[in-house]
Amino acid sequence: MVATTQVKAFGNESAEAQLEELDIKRRKPTPHDIEIDILFCGVCHSDLHTVRSEWGPTMYPCVPGHEIVGKVKSIGDHVTKFKVGDVVGVGCIVDSCRECEYCKEDLEQYCEPGMTGTYNAPDKYFENTPTFGGYSESIVVDENYVLRIPENLDLAATAPLLCAGITTYSPLHHWQVGPGKKIGVVGIGGLGHMAIKIAKAMGAHVVAFTTSESKFAEAKRLGADEIVLSKDKKQMAAYRGKLHFILDAVSAEHDINTYLGLLRVDGSLALVGAPEKPLPVAAFSLIPGRKSFAGSMIGGIKETQEMLDFCGTHNITADIEMINIQQINEAYERLLKGDVKYRFVIDMASLKGKS
Amino acid sequence: MVATTQVKAFGNESAEAQLEELDIKRRKPTPHDIEIDILFCGVCHSDLHTVRSEWGPTMYPCVPGHEIVGKVKSIGDHVTKFKVGDVVGVGCIVDSCRECEYCKEDLEQYCEPGMTGTYNAPDKYFENTPTFGGYSESIVVDENYVLRIPENLDLAATAPLLCAGITTYSPLHHWQVGPGKKIGVVGIGGLGHMAIKIAKAMGAHVVAFTTSESKFAEAKRLGADEIVLSKDKKQMAAYRGKLHFILDAVSAEHDINTYLGLLRVDGSLALVGAPEKPLPVAAFSLIPGRKSFAGSMIGGIKETQEMLDFCGTHNITADIEMINIQQINEAYERLLKGDVKYRFVIDMASLKGKS
Repeated sequence: MVATTQVKAFGNESAEAQLEELDIKRRKPTPHDIEIDILFCGVCHSDLHTVRSEWGPTMYPCVPGHEIVGKVKSIGDHVTKFKVGDVVGVGCIVDSCRECEYCKEDLEQYCEPGMTGTYNAPDKYFENTPTFGGYSESIVVDENYVLRIPENLDLAATAPLLCAGITTYSPLHHWQVGPGKKIGVVGIGGLGHMAIKIAKAMGAHVVAFTTSESKFAEAKRLGADEIVLSKDKKQMAAYRGKLHFILDAVSAEHDINTYLGLLRVDGSLALVGAPEKPLPVAAFSLIPGRKSFAGSMIGGIKETQEMLDFCGTHNITADIEMINIQQINEAYERLLKGDVKYRFVIDMASLKGKS
Repeated sequence: MVATTQVKAFGNESAEAQLEELDIKRRKPTPHDIEIDILFCGVCHSDLHTVRSEWGPTMYPCVPGHEIVGKVKSIGDHVTKFKVGDVVGVGCIVDSCRECEYCKEDLEQYCEPGMTGTYNAPDKYFENTPTFGGYSESIVVDENYVLRIPENLDLAATAPLLCAGITTYSPLHHWQVGPGKKIGVVGIGGLGHMAIKIAKAMGAHVVAFTTSESKFAEAKRLGADEIVLSKDKKQMAAYRGKLHFILDAVSAEHDINTYLGLLRVDGSLALVGAPEKPLPVAAFSLIPGRKSFAGSMIGGIKETQEMLDFCGTHNITADIEMINIQQINEAYERLLKGDVKYRFVIDMASLKGKS
């Protein structure tokens, strides 16, 4: 049996329940563990899907949160990578098998037996208990899954990089976005606004696609070189066959074929949003032009560190709205309406203050 | 006005009409042209779609055929690549702009203003007339779009390489199929049977998927290392996450998501068959595993020559059933039922003999 500490958290006990304060158990740091005092935690759309059990059955109690920034509070005896007081981050992955070919290739997100998610994954240290995420005072994570946060970045605005940042950085990097490439970003929300900033910093020419003219000024401010109103067929037609790559961050239903038509020969469209229903794809959207409709999921630990360092160098963080943990249920309602620019971040001091 | 010769052909005058003997005009060879006496012409599913105007409006009269093997009968004054008597081939492309970036990269099949198809494309030498394909005594083609046929291959069985061969060789080559790769071929027909032979010769481990147990022995004979009954869920499950690449040659409706599930991380499924209706693709078929659903269309001229040389080296041809041109309407009916192993090839002597 592993030794435990009781910590305060925010979570729910069933799909219908609102989130409220809970007491949970964390293991005391084992030799390779880092105990992290959580300062900020970003609010990801996945949190909402999971607390409501919309992505397969959720294990309750559910404490979400996988965009974690905090300070090292204590370390296990064999920890070499971090020391007490370091500012660190934890993203979507807290463990993986470390032995499969994908783990060995630093692709822990695609670990063959399955990565251990930061929340709602079987916790190997406790029987019949899920992992608990960042909506809590502290978290204990193996040092190999902890990230170093660049010193120059605002800590609260850095939290969303741990999921929204890596989810967009990884495909942009994988599909070699950079100077000389004209790329599209579809959907300007939590993921899309990061994609614009990162793709721009990578040196690409960025075309943002939005359903709303009201987002034009915002897209420009975020760094887009061109902005296209996606419901305007004439505007869309002007981009036919022009884009090397498209990052599609839309999780609502939308017509993929139109966007595939904007790709150049050998171009790829990578989906990072996850629409609920299957998307109809016409064979003739892919065959003439040898195009690819692809997907991408977060990124490995090594790549997440690369992304953080890249964001440090280019001074990139998310645009955030800070909330207290007590506002989380209301924030979810606003998230559902897309009413946030562009990411809620919880000031975790609000959880401690309430005791 | 270009000088012309009258030649016999087989074609139709409307979507509803059967194919019958027609007289058509061919240009006399201009300085870079080759006049080819047609010996054999393969029967591609596209021929059937086009004569029946199923792929957008067909221009009539329609003379299909783009798997052409013949002998050089005469050459234009400036021809350097071929001489009278050479055995040559013509595939799906008889011209392209030659100036766009794709033409310059030897990807004439993706020519920006559009390649000139061997049949049913606007003929730049004649106003308001489509190009006429290989169901005819002879054809005149610019030397840059004519292929050299390896001497060791059976000429009739080589004809289908010009479309079915390159359509499968090109994606197998593009997605780097070779030793150490485990790949799937879905659908064992005109395209699929070529894909098995070519992938095997490239050194890959080939898994063939078929809906019918009756095709197992055939797939083995063609070179498949393993054969899977695709309607058997248990057999399918054994291949989850195992394949580097899948070539999908099915043009009927089928469940793409099941096949995407068989891919490894970073795997691609390339569609070369063209199902009529859009295929529903689930986001979660692509996102976990960074998979791609892609398409591919024939191949460029340089790559077609490479494919022919590769087939020469490995002694690969199509499995064919020879017919006379007078049997073409009946052959189409059998093609619709999938009743051919695996490609009809017309002995064009039958057209000449009838006069």
